[in-house]
Amino acid sequence: MKAIKLFERASRTYNDSSSFSKLLVVFTVSGGGLLAYADANSTSPIAPPEIKKKRVVVLGTGWAGTSFLKQLDNPSYDVQVISPRNYFAFTPLLPSVTVGTVEPRSIVEPIRNIVKKKNVDVHYWEAECFKIDSQSKKVHCRSNKNIDGKGKEEFVVDYDYLVIAMGARPNTFNTPGVVEHCNFLKEVEDAQKIRRSVIDAFEKASLPSLSDEERQKMLHFVVVGGGPTGVEFAAELHDFVKEDLVKLYPAAGKYVKITLLEAADHILTMFDKRITEFAEDKFKRDGIDVKLGSMVIKVSDKEISTKGRVNGQLSTMPYGMVVWSTGIGTDPVVKDFMKQVGQETRRVLATDEWLRVEGTDSIYALGDCATINQRRVMEDISSIFKKADKENSGTLTVKQLQAVVDDICERYPQVDLYLKTKKLRNIADLLKDDSKSSVAISIEELKTALKEVDAQVKNLPATAQVAAQQGAYLAKCFNRMEEAEKNPEGPLRFRGEGRHRFHPFRYKHFGQFAPLGGEQTAAQLPGDWVSIGHSTQWLWYSVYASKLVSWRTRSLVVTDWVKRFIFGRDSSSI
Amino acid sequence: MKAIKLFERASRTYNDSSSFSKLLVVFTVSGGGLLAYADANSTSPIAPPEIKKKRVVVLGTGWAGTSFLKQLDNPSYDVQVISPRNYFAFTPLLPSVTVGTVEPRSIVEPIRNIVKKKNVDVHYWEAECFKIDSQSKKVHCRSNKNIDGKGKEEFVVDYDYLVIAMGARPNTFNTPGVVEHCNFLKEVEDAQKIRRSVIDAFEKASLPSLSDEERQKMLHFVVVGGGPTGVEFAAELHDFVKEDLVKLYPAAGKYVKITLLEAADHILTMFDKRITEFAEDKFKRDGIDVKLGSMVIKVSDKEISTKGRVNGQLSTMPYGMVVWSTGIGTDPVVKDFMKQVGQETRRVLATDEWLRVEGTDSIYALGDCATINQRRVMEDISSIFKKADKENSGTLTVKQLQAVVDDICERYPQVDLYLKTKKLRNIADLLKDDSKSSVAISIEELKTALKEVDAQVKNLPATAQVAAQQGAYLAKCFNRMEEAEKNPEGPLRFRGEGRHRFHPFRYKHFGQFAPLGGEQTAAQLPGDWVSIGHSTQWLWYSVYASKLVSWRTRSLVVTDWVKRFIFGRDSSSI
Repeated sequence: MKAIKLFERASRTYNDSSSFSKLLVVFTVSGGGLLAYADANSTSPIAPPEIKKKRVVVLGTGWAGTSFLKQLDNPSYDVQVISPRNYFAFTPLLPSVTVGTVEPRSIVEPIRNIVKKKNVDVHYWEAECFKIDSQSKKVHCRSNKNIDGKGKEEFVVDYDYLVIAMGARPNTFNTPGVVEHCNFLKEVEDAQKIRRSVIDAFEKASLPSLSDEERQKMLHFVVVGGGPTGVEFAAELHDFVKEDLVKLYPAAGKYVKITLLEAADHILTMFDKRITEFAEDKFKRDGIDVKLGSMVIKVSDKEISTKGRVNGQLSTMPYGMVVWSTGIGTDPVVKDFMKQVGQETRRVLATDEWLRVEGTDSIYALGDCATINQRRVMEDISSIFKKADKENSGTLTVKQLQAVVDDICERYPQVDLYLKTKKLRNIADLLKDDSKSSVAISIEELKTALKEVDAQVKNLPATAQVAAQQGAYLAKCFNRMEEAEKNPEGPLRFRGEGRHRFHPFRYKHFGQFAPLGGEQTAAQLPGDWVSIGHSTQWLWYSVYASKLVSWRTRSLVVTDWVKRFIFGRDSSSI
Repeated sequence: MKAIKLFERASRTYNDSSSFSKLLVVFTVSGGGLLAYADANSTSPIAPPEIKKKRVVVLGTGWAGTSFLKQLDNPSYDVQVISPRNYFAFTPLLPSVTVGTVEPRSIVEPIRNIVKKKNVDVHYWEAECFKIDSQSKKVHCRSNKNIDGKGKEEFVVDYDYLVIAMGARPNTFNTPGVVEHCNFLKEVEDAQKIRRSVIDAFEKASLPSLSDEERQKMLHFVVVGGGPTGVEFAAELHDFVKEDLVKLYPAAGKYVKITLLEAADHILTMFDKRITEFAEDKFKRDGIDVKLGSMVIKVSDKEISTKGRVNGQLSTMPYGMVVWSTGIGTDPVVKDFMKQVGQETRRVLATDEWLRVEGTDSIYALGDCATINQRRVMEDISSIFKKADKENSGTLTVKQLQAVVDDICERYPQVDLYLKTKKLRNIADLLKDDSKSSVAISIEELKTALKEVDAQVKNLPATAQVAAQQGAYLAKCFNRMEEAEKNPEGPLRFRGEGRHRFHPFRYKHFGQFAPLGGEQTAAQLPGDWVSIGHSTQWLWYSVYASKLVSWRTRSLVVTDWVKRFIFGRDSSSI
C-alpha cells in the first residue's frame, strides 16, 4: 500500500510540476551509468502568432532544422516550423533500425517536445511546403493527411526570414526502375519497410513447393552504393541473418546471399585507405559479395542489371530486395525555388558563407538541401588590394598586408589553410618578420602568390554533423542579430564598407564512423587518426548514445542495445 | 579492454551455446525483480515433413493455437502450423498499444521461437487457409505475400488431425459503413493504425485556418461497445490525452471529446454491478460521454448515426475516429467449413465437450472460432437410465444411481452444478443417505427431478483465458492419445459401450480485469470477489506480466511501463 502511495505521489508530482527534474537510472551493459532527464513544459497555442515579432519560418525537422530550433533562444522571433514529419529522427541509427537492433521509436523525438521553450514562440504545422514564393515572402503548404471531405488542407504562411532545411532526395541518377523497385534508406518509414521485407523474404522462402532457384532469388539481398550507409546496412543485415534468422530459419541459411555493388574501385572511398582495405577484407571473410566497378544500369521487378565501369561487361542477376544508397539529389520544391532566385543553372542550392541563399536577403538554407559557395580569392583580389592599400599607392607594404591578413583568412579560409600548411611559406615568413614590414608588393605579385589557393576549396559532405553545426551556427546568428547590427563581429567587407555582421560558418570535423558488423567499427578521427575493431565499436556506442537528442531517446537506444544483446533481434512480421 | 573481452566472451557464449540459460536483471519501478530467461534452439528444416507420423495441422497462432503448440510434446506427431501472422500476440495488451503505453513489438513473440522444441517436429508456413476440405482431409493455403511474378503462392496440406484455431472476425451486425469507416481492435496492426490516427487527429486539428467545428469533429473519438475492450480503450485514450497530448497540443485540449456508445443499459454488463457502477461514475468524472441504450445504425465518412433502443430517437454526430468493439462474428472460411459438416444452420461452429467438431472424427476447433455444444441431459435421459439399470428392471435403485452419478456429473457438468448449488437437495440427500439405497426411482421421476438442469448450460465467453485453456487441454489429449485408447480415463459412454477416452474439457475461471484508466482497475475474481482501485491496477500489472508468453516479452512490457512512467507516451507519427 505504501509503495502504491509513493508511486501515485511520484506520478502526480511528475505530471503536475512542469519544472520537476526527472531522474532515471538506466542499467547499461557496460556497468551502469547515471542519466539525468530534465524537461520543462510550456504552451504553444493553435491560434496563429501575432504579427509584431519577426516571423521566422523553418522548413524541415531534420538535423539542420532541429539543431536551429534547439539553439534559438531570442524571444523577439515568432517561429513557425513546417515539416511532414512531426518528429526529429536520429538518422545515423537508421541502418540499425532496418534489422531491429534499435527500434524506430527509440530514435525519434517529437518536434513539439524539442521546441517546448520558455522564451521563444514556436508553432509546428504537420504539412509539406510545396512552393516557396520568395517574391511575396510566402510559403505554400499542404497538410500531410486528408482533412475529411476537403482533401488536403492548403494554407499560406508569411515570413520575414525563411530557413530552408528540407534535406534531399535519394539520387537515382535517373536509372530506370530504381524508384519503382528499390528501397531507400533516408526515412524511418524506409527502415521499417526494409525490416518487413527482410522477414517477408525469409517467410516466403520457407514456404513449401518452391524451387531452389526461387528461394535463392528471394534471399538475394542487393545493396547499391558502397558509402557509409550502404556498407553499414550490408553489415547489419549480415549480422541479423547470421546471429538471429539462421537459427529460426535454419534451412534457409544456405540460400542467403548479400551483394554490395559499388561503381568506384573501392568501397568507403571517403575514408582512409586502411579502413577501406579492412572493410573489403572483412566483407570477403563474411561472405558478402562486394562487386567493385559495377554500375547499375537498370532495375526490373525481378532482376538488376549492371555494367562494368572498366570493361563495359553487362551482367544481370535476380534479386529479392534492393537497397539503393548512392547519394543525394535535389528536392523538386528547392529546384523550383532555385529558378526564382536565378540559380537555375546550378545543381545544388548555393548559399554564401553565412548560409544565406545567394540572390536573396532573408532566406537561409542549410543541411543537405544546400551547399556553401565559398567565395574565391581571385574574384575579389582587386577589392582586397584596394582595401588594404589605404594610401592608394598602387602597392601594398607588408605592414598593410599584416593589418588585413586576419580578415582575409577568416573571409577566405582557403588562404588560412594554405598559410597553415606552409605552402605559402614565403608570404607567411614575410608577414611574421617585422623587419620586412616596409617591403612593397604589387597586385600582380599578390595574385601570383595566391594563384593556387582557390583550388583548395572543397564542398562540405552531406552529413548529419555538417547540418547540425550549420543549424546551431545560424541560431546563434539569429540570437545576436540586433546586437551584431550595431557591433558587427565578422571580417572586413572587402567589396563594401564596414565589417560583416557575423563570423562566417566554419565546419569542425569530429570524425566519422563506419560500422562493419560483428561488433567491429572503423573510425576516422580528426588529424587522420584511424581506429578499427571492437574497441571502436564501443567508442561508437558511447558517441552515438551521447549525441542522441534527448534523455528519452538515449535511454531507449541503450535499452535496445541491451535487449538485442540478451534476446537477439525480433523477427515478427509487424 | 577487459570489459570488452568480457562482453565478447559473454556474447560468444550466448550465441554459440544453445542451451545456455540467459539471465537478465530488469530494473523495475516497484523495486526491482529478478527475471530469468531460458531458451533452447533446435532446427526446423524447410523440406516438407515425412509421412509416417500422424500429421497434425494447426490453423492459427492466436491464444488457442499457440497454447496447443506450447503444450504438445508427443514426438509421434508431425505438426504443420498455418497462419498469416508469424507471431503470437498478447492481445489483452492491445488497448495499451493503441496509445503507446506498450510497444507493439513488446507483446509479440515469433511463433518459430515458441515452437523450437526438442522432440516434436513443428513447421510453420506464413499463409492463410482459404478452404478446408474435410472430405479429402486437406487444407488449401495461400501465401501471405506475393511471390514475385507468380502472385500469391497456393499450396495444399494434408492432415490426419486438423486443429482449427482461426479466431473470429469483428461483428458488425451488418451495420452499413462500419467496415469502411471504423477501426477495429483485434490485431496488432489495428492497434498501430489507431495510434497513428489519434496523433494524426491532433496534428490535423492543430493546422491553421480551420474552424472550431472542424477541430471539434477531428478530435471527437467514438468508441462503440461497452465491453471490456471498448471500455479499456476509452480509458487508455483518455489518459493519453490528459497526461501527454494536452501538454504538447495545449490549445487542442478544449476540443477533445470521447464518446462511448453502448446498446445495453449499462457498460461492462458481464461484470458485477458494483464494477459497472464504479466504471460509469469514473467515466462521468473523467468527462467521457457514456451514451447507454444507443444502437449504431449507420456510419458514414463524417457522421455516426444512432437510435435509442427504448425511445427510438434518432441522432447523428460528426466524428474524427470510431473504434468498433462489439463482439465477434464467424470467419467466412469457417462458415464454408460448417456447410461441409452439416452445421449450416448454426451461428457458430459447434464442438462436443472434447473440442471435436460435431459431425467429424478428426477435426478439432477451439478458441473464438468455435463453441462447445454441451450435451443436454434430457436428450440422453433414456440411455442414462438404461445404462444405470443394469438388471433391466425398469426402475433405478438409489444404489444404482449412486454407481453412475460421478460419470453423469462429469459428462453433464450442469448436473454437478445443480447438485452443488443445492437446487436438487432431495436427490443429493438421497444419494448421500446409505440407508435409502434400495429406494426405487422411475424414469419419469428422474426426468422431473432433472427437468430444469439443462437451462443451466451456458456458452463460454470468447476470451483469451478460455482459448488458452482449450489449447492446453487439447495438447494434453494429443500427448496421451495412444495411452488413452488403451486405458480410457473419461466418463461412461451412456449411449455407447465403454468409457470416453478423455475427461471432457472443463473451464476454470480465474477472474477478469477491467482497466478503467488513471491507474485504476476493476477485477472480478472467482467466487464473485470484486476489487477496484489502484491496488487492483498493481494486481493487473503483476498478473499480466506473469502471463506474458516469454521472458523477452515480459521484460519488454515491464520496460515499456517504466518508460511510460518516466517519459510519458511518445507522440511521433510513426
